[in-house]
Amino acid sequence: MSQNQIPAQMKAVVLEKHGDIGSLRVVERPIPKPGPNEVLVRVTASPINPSDLAFLEGRYGFNKPAPVVPGIEGSGTVVAAGSGLMGRYLLGKRVACVSSANGDGLWAEYLLTTASSAYPLDDAVELEQGAMSLANPLSALAFMEIARQDGHKTIVNTAAASALGQMLERLAQSEGILVINVVRRPEQAELLKQLGAQVVLDSSNTDFDAQLKEACHRHQARLAFDAVAGKMTLQLLESLPRNSKVTVYGGLSMQPSEVWASQFIFEGKSVDGFWLTTWIPKKNFLQSLLFWQKAQKLMNSSLKTHIRARYPLQEAQKAVMNYQQQMTGGKVLLTTGE
Amino acid sequence: MSQNQIPAQMKAVVLEKHGDIGSLRVVERPIPKPGPNEVLVRVTASPINPSDLAFLEGRYGFNKPAPVVPGIEGSGTVVAAGSGLMGRYLLGKRVACVSSANGDGLWAEYLLTTASSAYPLDDAVELEQGAMSLANPLSALAFMEIARQDGHKTIVNTAAASALGQMLERLAQSEGILVINVVRRPEQAELLKQLGAQVVLDSSNTDFDAQLKEACHRHQARLAFDAVAGKMTLQLLESLPRNSKVTVYGGLSMQPSEVWASQFIFEGKSVDGFWLTTWIPKKNFLQSLLFWQKAQKLMNSSLKTHIRARYPLQEAQKAVMNYQQQMTGGKVLLTTGE
Repeated sequence: MSQNQIPAQMKAVVLEKHGDIGSLRVVERPIPKPGPNEVLVRVTASPINPSDLAFLEGRYGFNKPAPVVPGIEGSGTVVAAGSGLMGRYLLGKRVACVSSANGDGLWAEYLLTTASSAYPLDDAVELEQGAMSLANPLSALAFMEIARQDGHKTIVNTAAASALGQMLERLAQSEGILVINVVRRPEQAELLKQLGAQVVLDSSNTDFDAQLKEACHRHQARLAFDAVAGKMTLQLLESLPRNSKVTVYGGLSMQPSEVWASQFIFEGKSVDGFWLTTWIPKKNFLQSLLFWQKAQKLMNSSLKTHIRARYPLQEAQKAVMNYQQQMTGGKVLLTTGE
Repeated sequence: MSQNQIPAQMKAVVLEKHGDIGSLRVVERPIPKPGPNEVLVRVTASPINPSDLAFLEGRYGFNKPAPVVPGIEGSGTVVAAGSGLMGRYLLGKRVACVSSANGDGLWAEYLLTTASSAYPLDDAVELEQGAMSLANPLSALAFMEIARQDGHKTIVNTAAASALGQMLERLAQSEGILVINVVRRPEQAELLKQLGAQVVLDSSNTDFDAQLKEACHRHQARLAFDAVAGKMTLQLLESLPRNSKVTVYGGLSMQPSEVWASQFIFEGKSVDGFWLTTWIPKKNFLQSLLFWQKAQKLMNSSLKTHIRARYPLQEAQKAVMNYQQQMTGGKVLLTTGE
């Protein structure tokens, strides 16, 4: 498609005010033109992830002033490219993409982003699955890589019934790593057991603290990935054996964590964080390429995401509320009808 | 001195109950005999360190059931040794020593400890200075080594007017590393400035938060050593630039720290701990030897400790209260008169 065939205007979801989902509305906007090393993507679909909720609340890593188009990841077709080799290579290709650090997001008919933020999809990956091939699949693969590098045979994961949690359990099974899955409801535990998970702990059980400690010590778990933070980080620090690390990758509890000096000093424990946005660039070009290819190959198996509901852009607010009410049991997608 | 010249009984300070300084009393005890790889040290002096206060409170890394003799480090002369090469080598030597993980401590006329817990003093190091040649000097040297290894040109230190803090400032000056010293009283700031410290911040100032942030960013400090914990750890995490680490080595505030997921995830920050007891054994024999020799060479200059007061064992309770009231401005020693 040439630049001439692109309409002048598009529909886009705009957040008028951070922290106010009621301020989400659909507006008509001019479609931007790609500059050097930029591409224009005709968007097909974009999921709602926990990171999008954090963005809507104004708690995400990038602070983009409102009014702003939300939507961190998605998929579509590159319909125009500015100057630069990479953009020209991508022209006409089906891609997964992320919004750029200071630009609008994917809850719109078109996305302008940097060429390096678009990744060609394998032919076998449909555009809807492709819309969810970055945040969760790459994080799950990253966790496995981190675990392998440090020689861990067991890892802990919290909010484990999430899309990412399910991927992690499936990947870990295929690589012979045991996951101690922490969920907060019996039906989530059931879901993971159906995937073949051996160890699933429900934090709503009255003896959860003791169960977590027992499991961490029995299986010698020294690395925990924590999407919850708040009280959970402390529970993990208390439960893990000496010389363990908690890697926080989400703050679903929206609460601070209380931690104690003695855990760091005498027990040799530590806390750090994981953010895909800063983790990926530590790889060189070839490493990134291989990592992406591995993810694409697994997109229809270990890394497949169940889609629970699809909403048009006009119903973005309803879609967000649906997802907020039930963050596990399938993704909620915004689709453009492309 | 042969085993025969050692009396049968000794005076020892005993803590009857953790958390109750009033339960410190002097008792007569049989002098133990060294077993294989053990030595008996006739104690000269033992300081009161923050770690001793933590031990008295029952908050230290080793849990020794009361009644127990406190005193983590000190000095003396090896007067008897059990079987084993190391013990025989040490016999008759002036040593710095630490109590063993499950034995009694140094606030006594004699200490039974493992041969590997006693370190020969240089001739130039007097026994009183030698009594303080482990915890603080080796921690200060360790901090410098950690800073150098990771290429830091600036570090932050809290409770910086402590004996350790003063040593760190002097060492850093000699190695061209800048220390952002955090103290909590004007007279402590004065003390550090007299040592030649360039950056000293007083946390009792109303604009301390802003000052700390400004200093950390201006000097690109990415490593903080924190002896305070509690609110201070959060202040450090908030003040340091991205990709910084707080290494907690003390919990003087006796409070937990509130930390936030976003600091770990989006800002790439982390918290870990430092404990000399677990740090030293990561070195091999030769590295440990060189490390100890370096410390001994500096004991009369950068690593010299000012002694504020000396108390006999009988006045241990008074000595502890004196130290609790004023933890900077010189060490309080327990001495046996040897």
